[in-house]
Amino acid sequence: MQKPSTPSGTRDFSPAQVSKRDYLFETIKTVFKKYGYLPIETPAMENLSTLSGKYGEEGDQLLFRILNSGDYLKKVTELSDYKHFTTQISEKGLRYDLTVPFARYVVTHQNELTFPFRRYQIQPVWRADRPQKGRYREFYQCDADVVGADSLLNEAELLEMADEIYAKLGLKVVVKINSRKVLQGLAQKVGQPDKMVDITVAIDKLDKIGWEGVEKELAKREITPEGIAQIQNFIEHAQDLPFLQDFFAGIDVAAQGLAEVETVFTALKEIELTNKIEFDATLARGLGYYTGCIFEVKSLEAQMGSIGGGGRYDDLTGIFGMKGYSGVGISFGVERIYDIMEELQLFPAEAIESTQIMVLGFDEKARLFAIPLLRKLREAGIRAELYTENKKIQKQLDYVNKRQIRYALLIGENEMQNQVYTLKDMQASEQHTLDVAQIIAKLTAN
Amino acid sequence: MQKPSTPSGTRDFSPAQVSKRDYLFETIKTVFKKYGYLPIETPAMENLSTLSGKYGEEGDQLLFRILNSGDYLKKVTELSDYKHFTTQISEKGLRYDLTVPFARYVVTHQNELTFPFRRYQIQPVWRADRPQKGRYREFYQCDADVVGADSLLNEAELLEMADEIYAKLGLKVVVKINSRKVLQGLAQKVGQPDKMVDITVAIDKLDKIGWEGVEKELAKREITPEGIAQIQNFIEHAQDLPFLQDFFAGIDVAAQGLAEVETVFTALKEIELTNKIEFDATLARGLGYYTGCIFEVKSLEAQMGSIGGGGRYDDLTGIFGMKGYSGVGISFGVERIYDIMEELQLFPAEAIESTQIMVLGFDEKARLFAIPLLRKLREAGIRAELYTENKKIQKQLDYVNKRQIRYALLIGENEMQNQVYTLKDMQASEQHTLDVAQIIAKLTAN
Repeated sequence: MQKPSTPSGTRDFSPAQVSKRDYLFETIKTVFKKYGYLPIETPAMENLSTLSGKYGEEGDQLLFRILNSGDYLKKVTELSDYKHFTTQISEKGLRYDLTVPFARYVVTHQNELTFPFRRYQIQPVWRADRPQKGRYREFYQCDADVVGADSLLNEAELLEMADEIYAKLGLKVVVKINSRKVLQGLAQKVGQPDKMVDITVAIDKLDKIGWEGVEKELAKREITPEGIAQIQNFIEHAQDLPFLQDFFAGIDVAAQGLAEVETVFTALKEIELTNKIEFDATLARGLGYYTGCIFEVKSLEAQMGSIGGGGRYDDLTGIFGMKGYSGVGISFGVERIYDIMEELQLFPAEAIESTQIMVLGFDEKARLFAIPLLRKLREAGIRAELYTENKKIQKQLDYVNKRQIRYALLIGENEMQNQVYTLKDMQASEQHTLDVAQIIAKLTAN
Repeated sequence: MQKPSTPSGTRDFSPAQVSKRDYLFETIKTVFKKYGYLPIETPAMENLSTLSGKYGEEGDQLLFRILNSGDYLKKVTELSDYKHFTTQISEKGLRYDLTVPFARYVVTHQNELTFPFRRYQIQPVWRADRPQKGRYREFYQCDADVVGADSLLNEAELLEMADEIYAKLGLKVVVKINSRKVLQGLAQKVGQPDKMVDITVAIDKLDKIGWEGVEKELAKREITPEGIAQIQNFIEHAQDLPFLQDFFAGIDVAAQGLAEVETVFTALKEIELTNKIEFDATLARGLGYYTGCIFEVKSLEAQMGSIGGGGRYDDLTGIFGMKGYSGVGISFGVERIYDIMEELQLFPAEAIESTQIMVLGFDEKARLFAIPLLRKLREAGIRAELYTENKKIQKQLDYVNKRQIRYALLIGENEMQNQVYTLKDMQASEQHTLDVAQIIAKLTAN
């Protein structure tokens, strides 16, 4: 019989991995709550009417669809094109991200909510992507958003919150900020306002393909040579706010975008952040639905794409018919953050809440004797485990070693009589004879 | 446009609900870890080869199946019976419970694991059941199991652990215990050893249909009148261990079952439990895969079926070809436990980690001034939120009220000048003028 496995692109998580993931999520959640972001959860599946058309053609292809229950073929009379066929046999799909379910949640519950509404959500999402190193078909997303809030103080607070989170995790990062309006203004400046998407897509690749690549891309997308020269000038001064204020004189939307960025910096002026926040006018954040400020977080220690980002969207819930609710959000790339923390060994030893002490009996009488003793250890908050099986002490000690448990407590005839026990420190390879109170004191110290 | 909703039988969870569910799960997890049970997580989807045939005909029908990706019809030439058709267009399904994925996990990772292996798992499962009050298509299960352990000390420890968990949650329960071997012995005693399943199924309904109903059921299942009389006698003495030891004299399997129960009671004799554990020879726990000790937990305060249960299975991983690993586990009915705790108002106020203080500014200058002040509050661990929008103070106070946040901190011109602020206690309808240190002291007291 072949060993069974998980479906391609999905993972099992071992106890050590779950503990570390929990530590990561708990650290983030604690900070979220301090800023007024509260948890919601939505179902793994959503109606396809909620999901379809929200992620573009490509995203639609990557949705995991769920077969209708019962005899789902009853109403189907013939095989057809699979896309049309799918609509007849599937009504639900797995969550593809947390943004669309959040928008749906806000619209569904609009009468119970008080705006501004701040929420965070840490849940898995599923994508039928081709699995490869670091890319999974099931992975966690971690988002914090506020909806029904226009003030740029929200952008500032989200950046402060992100700074605190990365600092608490021990990650050194740089945060870049821009406004989509600057890019919109650039298309106007170039004299091709209808080309904003093309220009954005090209500039978005700057990191990967360099200026020469971007230049080619822009030419291919029919930007005029004069326009390309303007864009080059723009890129060369992408961090120079005063220069760009001049550059965009008379182009209102760009001026507004630059003013937004300035407002955010002003709000953060009076507090000291751990990480640097930099203005970068070339920051584009893909196509997305952003309309105002955008930000992106990069690790300074690991060669990896962005490990966080977000921005403002003017009309998140508009896709479900609820107009006029502006919002801003930030997303933490928790899977990548986990990988970096693993690589840099940033998880503290306490993150793995494994068993601290294993109690070993020389015989069944000793094991029965151990039960009230274990209770005392556990009442003191110690994670204590009993070796329940009838095995020789050496076998039991091998087990403690393999499990990498620090302490073994040995109970035999003498120990039961004298109520003092042999505590073996497997790490220090030393042992002491102690009573219960002393054992508790030792294991709960610091 | 119609308001979008979640798929039938699934739920959104609001911040207050998520907080309470987290409190419930955290309480259970903390106890699990104290007994050496460590967390694992498995993917939401499993291969259908893993899931199919493990839950009986009915369970197979209730699996949520996932459509293959891409042009899944390419290899299909004609419409056929939907069950056969399904095998051609779907290879994966959503997790139906946590037991089969756990067995699959143990077999997949057998070479990395050290036995006895203790794990807990708290994750959602999905069933295409007809939704009704209290029955959902997506719900959480919460299991703790040890595999590769034969000793009955594991049964005893699981019961001790369950007792501690229900006590910590504030629930009054009774735990019933039996062994499947007693029921096996009963079929022998009745002289119809092949009828064990029939007898078990009938007795399992005792609570619901009473003895008369069970009697009819037994007759229908062709138990002889003499056999039925024996069963009646058995049921009347279902809690009388000495009587049953006599009753089953000469029937080894039953004697063994009774001895198992006695061993568990002996192990628990030296410790004091909060809840009562009762022997009940009529306890059957459905059909399941149990082969040894079984237990079930009922609430003494709420009219509800079982809110927990478990037992020993001789060969959990055998379904995946890994023989000879006995295990025992317990499952907590967390959805029902949540409902009871809600009904009996057992969630402590601290379980809802909502915002403690809302900072309100009279104008934008005051809001900017508030940013470093908020930082101080948050650094002290206080969950503090800024009202970011440009609204009149009365509107802002309405928001604080609607959100049921206890404290509002008002900042205007005077406050900024004197660095003392008006702290409104919305609950006590009183207000005080305090500086930051005093505010922190007030909010972090007790």
